[in-house]
Amino acid sequence: MLPKDQIAFNGCLDLIRRQFESFGFSPLDTPVVEKASTLLSKGNDNEIYGLCRLASDEMAKKELGLRFDLTVPLARYVAEHAGQLIFPYKRYHIAPVFRGERAQAGRYRQFIQCDIDIIGDAELALAYDAEVLAIVYKIFTAIRLPNYRIRINNRKILIGLIQAFGVEADRIEATIRQIDKKDKIDAIEMGKGLSDIGISSKSVQAIQDFLAMPEKLSYLESLPKEPLLEEGLLELKEVLRLAQAFHVSSDVLEIDPTLARGLNYYTGIIYETKWLDCPELGSICGGGRYQNLAATFTKKSLPGVGISIGVSRLIPKMIEKGLIPSSAETLARVLVCVQDRQFLAHYIAIAEKIRNQGIPTEIYLQEKPLPNQIKYADRKGFEIVVIANEEEIHQGRINYKILKEQIQVNATVDELIVHLKKQK
Amino acid sequence: MLPKDQIAFNGCLDLIRRQFESFGFSPLDTPVVEKASTLLSKGNDNEIYGLCRLASDEMAKKELGLRFDLTVPLARYVAEHAGQLIFPYKRYHIAPVFRGERAQAGRYRQFIQCDIDIIGDAELALAYDAEVLAIVYKIFTAIRLPNYRIRINNRKILIGLIQAFGVEADRIEATIRQIDKKDKIDAIEMGKGLSDIGISSKSVQAIQDFLAMPEKLSYLESLPKEPLLEEGLLELKEVLRLAQAFHVSSDVLEIDPTLARGLNYYTGIIYETKWLDCPELGSICGGGRYQNLAATFTKKSLPGVGISIGVSRLIPKMIEKGLIPSSAETLARVLVCVQDRQFLAHYIAIAEKIRNQGIPTEIYLQEKPLPNQIKYADRKGFEIVVIANEEEIHQGRINYKILKEQIQVNATVDELIVHLKKQK
Repeated sequence: MLPKDQIAFNGCLDLIRRQFESFGFSPLDTPVVEKASTLLSKGNDNEIYGLCRLASDEMAKKELGLRFDLTVPLARYVAEHAGQLIFPYKRYHIAPVFRGERAQAGRYRQFIQCDIDIIGDAELALAYDAEVLAIVYKIFTAIRLPNYRIRINNRKILIGLIQAFGVEADRIEATIRQIDKKDKIDAIEMGKGLSDIGISSKSVQAIQDFLAMPEKLSYLESLPKEPLLEEGLLELKEVLRLAQAFHVSSDVLEIDPTLARGLNYYTGIIYETKWLDCPELGSICGGGRYQNLAATFTKKSLPGVGISIGVSRLIPKMIEKGLIPSSAETLARVLVCVQDRQFLAHYIAIAEKIRNQGIPTEIYLQEKPLPNQIKYADRKGFEIVVIANEEEIHQGRINYKILKEQIQVNATVDELIVHLKKQK
Repeated sequence: MLPKDQIAFNGCLDLIRRQFESFGFSPLDTPVVEKASTLLSKGNDNEIYGLCRLASDEMAKKELGLRFDLTVPLARYVAEHAGQLIFPYKRYHIAPVFRGERAQAGRYRQFIQCDIDIIGDAELALAYDAEVLAIVYKIFTAIRLPNYRIRINNRKILIGLIQAFGVEADRIEATIRQIDKKDKIDAIEMGKGLSDIGISSKSVQAIQDFLAMPEKLSYLESLPKEPLLEEGLLELKEVLRLAQAFHVSSDVLEIDPTLARGLNYYTGIIYETKWLDCPELGSICGGGRYQNLAATFTKKSLPGVGISIGVSRLIPKMIEKGLIPSSAETLARVLVCVQDRQFLAHYIAIAEKIRNQGIPTEIYLQEKPLPNQIKYADRKGFEIVVIANEEEIHQGRINYKILKEQIQVNATVDELIVHLKKQK
């Protein structure tokens, strides 16, 4: 990324981080490198990078690798430090993860994940599901994402429903995985996939009919009271009620009883977010509730709720579409020019004075004529340039130029500071 | 790092980042993974990690590796994007780097580097050397590092001096490398090392005498006017004069004409910083001026000035010594308790109201009795807990408890917000 885009990107990450912190999430930063055994306990082998010695001929020992997500490191960390953490443990983690692409040597994929999770050391209150929903909503409001929908479901509803359609217990997971493909395949492929699982044609038909139904929720309510389905519906309603207390607009919410999310460790409320203007991005934010974070690392039961925002896809797209302003190549507002080299120390003192008021200020130190200095300020996107010749220096005055408006004002440094403080 | 220390650590990095930005440096973030050929062009082969496929048996192709510093990625980046960057290009980069330890399988080293560089597309003004010095000073002031010294020298002084002592041109680099060991070896080893380079015993003696001298600077001034030495001294004085304009206290500066810095790509002013209370940390911040950043990647000459702060060693040590407060496990100031579950939505609304005033506020959503909730607030280090029973809710009032002072106040939420805004 070039400076302009990097500044815009980092600005967005800062907004997200501030939202996380304002809800009481603490930062976590684990090493990029994890033990291979930790990574292999969960990941798709083909996607994981291992470490070797670049310059030596020895065979790689493959004892270390690069994390492919932030959930496995979280599980390892919480299992290791359970005795020192205060539960519910609320952490955020914004950091790069790495996934190797099979067969295409020389290519690599690194992207930033942006995760929050709330981990309980005992049962975790349902209200946290609403809190997570609220945070997603507030983040998208803060970065001004237009026209998106948070699809929400409860795995209990989906499983209850599949049971109600007569699918046997040992085929439920496979059925969920097939239903999860619904946005990518047509009805014929869906039917074929369901049949291949080995469920009855009556069940296949019932699922197909339901997928095609426009008013799924009212149909659900009309079904006979099956306990799991009932529980799932009650939970979903409670989460929606609490989301309202968090001021989540119902306009962005979409209840979708067929939403599955591939990962089979989700056990309760689940979310997925689509940006309607950019469906090609897929889900830009997803997550949900799971029964046990770290079963492979500890016997302790650690239920949780978490979400992950796909910032590496979303933010550059928003910048590209002009939805996130990316105009300046600097975070400094003022450029102090050095018009007359003999007064260099004086110009430095002016810059210091402005900077000490909390206003980021650069001084142009290259030995170039004044027009080059102003051109530099223009190209980099400074708000104001400060100019002063010998006479003005002796008078204790400066000229400041507001670049956007092409206005020049003769003033003292203190007066400029007053102007700058008014602007922000 | 546990949450407390991570919060303190991140707080420090934020202070550093804000200083960089306030001087007009822009963020850069390059991938952790670089081409092996890029890394091998500069690094010590034995220390570089390469990537392989963790789960497959294929021999590692070793086309990719992990960066071992932030300078090589900077050189690659500037060479690649020289046409799109505005010069002088001022960038900061705070990110992890990786160095393998030889022979000790299973161990790895990851640490965070914290770099700034100013890169010119033509000659770079000497004043930037003073600016970099000022930034280091301001950062250490901001994080309240006590009792440190920035040692400063000019490579031109050192080279001029070695020439004046009669060392032949082709032995100057080796002599500098030997002098660089002065803090680690005694006079006898120093003498032996110098002799081994093959310089005359008269030159060895002159260097030894100079190293032992207490008033090196006045001796330098008394030497015959050798052009390089002279130029070096003039530059050093100018940098010190400008540093004063940047309000750098002379108390922390220490001119050391024998300071060498190992890397032979430095060509002008150089720095090294020691924390006198923790000499075991070595140099906690070093850098200097170089003639050409990216000779291996481009024919374009790219002179620069840069520094690197060893945050991964320094900050944890400062936390350990109690110099950086690390008391809270949360960045939220207020915990809203849920005393009476039936009013959950009301408590959420209270938390929302406070949070919307820019005050980070957590709501305790677990179904636990009030004393557990207050204990949670105490342990995590919240400033204030908010409590309200049914009656208070109907009156539109709350009780807020200031945990440190064990004071409880009956008030409205608006009154609490006024109190919170006064506190910060």
